[in-house]
Amino acid sequence: KPLRYTGGVLQMIDQRRLPTEEVWLDYRDYREVAEAIRTMVVRGAPAIGCAAAFGAWFGARDIDTDSTAAFLEQFAAVCELLAASRPTAVNLFWALERMQSFARSHADRPVLQIKIALEYEALAILEEDERINRAMGEHGQKLLPERCRILTHCNAGALATGGYGTALGVIRAAAAAGKQIEVFADETRPFLQGSRLTAWELQRDGIPTTLICDNMAGYLMSQGRVDCVIVGADRIAANGDTANKIGTYSLAVLAKEHGIPFYVAAPISTIDFSLTDGRQIPIEERDPREVTHIGEQRLAPEDIAVYNPAFDVTPARLITAIITENGVAEGDFVHTLPELAEGTKR
Amino acid sequence: KPLRYTGGVLQMIDQRRLPTEEVWLDYRDYREVAEAIRTMVVRGAPAIGCAAAFGAWFGARDIDTDSTAAFLEQFAAVCELLAASRPTAVNLFWALERMQSFARSHADRPVLQIKIALEYEALAILEEDERINRAMGEHGQKLLPERCRILTHCNAGALATGGYGTALGVIRAAAAAGKQIEVFADETRPFLQGSRLTAWELQRDGIPTTLICDNMAGYLMSQGRVDCVIVGADRIAANGDTANKIGTYSLAVLAKEHGIPFYVAAPISTIDFSLTDGRQIPIEERDPREVTHIGEQRLAPEDIAVYNPAFDVTPARLITAIITENGVAEGDFVHTLPELAEGTKR
Repeated sequence: KPLRYTGGVLQMIDQRRLPTEEVWLDYRDYREVAEAIRTMVVRGAPAIGCAAAFGAWFGARDIDTDSTAAFLEQFAAVCELLAASRPTAVNLFWALERMQSFARSHADRPVLQIKIALEYEALAILEEDERINRAMGEHGQKLLPERCRILTHCNAGALATGGYGTALGVIRAAAAAGKQIEVFADETRPFLQGSRLTAWELQRDGIPTTLICDNMAGYLMSQGRVDCVIVGADRIAANGDTANKIGTYSLAVLAKEHGIPFYVAAPISTIDFSLTDGRQIPIEERDPREVTHIGEQRLAPEDIAVYNPAFDVTPARLITAIITENGVAEGDFVHTLPELAEGTKR
Repeated sequence: KPLRYTGGVLQMIDQRRLPTEEVWLDYRDYREVAEAIRTMVVRGAPAIGCAAAFGAWFGARDIDTDSTAAFLEQFAAVCELLAASRPTAVNLFWALERMQSFARSHADRPVLQIKIALEYEALAILEEDERINRAMGEHGQKLLPERCRILTHCNAGALATGGYGTALGVIRAAAAAGKQIEVFADETRPFLQGSRLTAWELQRDGIPTTLICDNMAGYLMSQGRVDCVIVGADRIAANGDTANKIGTYSLAVLAKEHGIPFYVAAPISTIDFSLTDGRQIPIEERDPREVTHIGEQRLAPEDIAVYNPAFDVTPARLITAIITENGVAEGDFVHTLPELAEGTKR
């Protein structure tokens, strides 16, 4: 688990330093949480949502007023700053909106009570996330055959969530169900979430895992060595178009070319029903240095132009099924996603 | 140019250290040349062929016998050792076979004369290669529109050849013809020939170049930002199936999905008419450390399994045209490639 909360302190494992170092950092201030999201100390859509919820709680706690109206106004500013940390993963905005609407729904209470309730709500978001992932894993693993060689991209594991993982949750649930699972993990340039995080997680779980470079996936598929692809998601539009880590779209095209099922595993909170399709999803572009350097080591000539989009959009037509905590959506996602979302209470 | 020959010494730029350091290494011994090929001091199918030719010459020079029969036998052993350095690029075997058949054709001469002729032949191979690439560039650039955004993979440039380049030769010729060229260079994991070598070469030529990670190519294409793909080749089977740097196959599938022309640029010596199709091309697998480390820095957990094929095979059906020094092959390569090869004298 990448986050833990005790005694008013949020601890997050610095995911930039894995797997060579396991360093836990302490957070008590909402601005520092926003910076941790921006600089990818914590990453993965659901984990970002959890971190933002605690950031919102820290911000709320430090607001110095007895007026509920003033409190709600200042709390909105706190959430606005946190929301500006990263643009693509919708779970960030979902968690902040949940915290704010929870605060607003307590607008008849004294500020102190609202604050206590917000701490409780942040913890609830974190704890729910792992439960959600375990339910997702159960639904998803039923899609997999008894023997299955799975390709995954980026890290949609425990480290990307409140625990257990989305795509890796499905893989863990299949292994726990006694299925014979082998995983190919794309290293996932430029941030190397696959080699640094996914390989590390799965190795610790004893699930056979082979690391490849992103550009090897197509060749593996052409050799008949991949039975399915499972990835997470950062935002899913109402029609099923899915923004996920850069490279996901290429994998989906390759899976289609080879007749391989392509699954997306994500909580209902990742679906943005306000967007009719994926063209409306903002795609973050990150620092060229992520591409030109590894640590302090320069890999490219100085002053070379770089294009570094952190995500891409996979059209719904390339997605075999979307696995959620409420079940599996297939067919026309415009109809099947809202049906599944209905199942979510609150 | 990655190789230069003066005063009995072959100098090669250490391509592992570019672009941060320009270090030239001296070679006088065929075993050291074999090691330089194996460890990728020199890489790129045509450049490997040139290096091997000089390696063969060094080996021949050091054979201590006056008997032509004994010389030819020992020379065969020299070439065998050089041929074992890397398995996929056919230019290596082509250059060694050319050196050997040249020696055999002088079997009626004294050993000293054969040796002098072999030095001449190695130089001829090197000098021809640049001429070949310039011809290839002229043929190839005619395929490109006046404004063209080109995606390339790995390094098929001056550094991969005796000079000018194959895929980059086409790009250089188009720029020289006044066409408005922009290049996207895949970084090309794990060895990073794209970021380290292609970006460096094109930047020095003043050709606008943007570096991307391999997994970004599909997303770029989906945005309509790529007009064609041009790559080199390590070995082409008689039917046009093409082995090239790992990741090439994925690009070809993506290009087809987006209706983008996919061009291969390679000298006739890269075509292996002894193989009916690409399944017969041996694919080298290299050290896992190329994937798990950058220099001394570890990027993945210890003891993780790695699959590291250096090449893949792109089926002929995904290739729009093969650009050679004798012209452009299109249509059914089984017929058009031998026609082009006919044009090569000797």
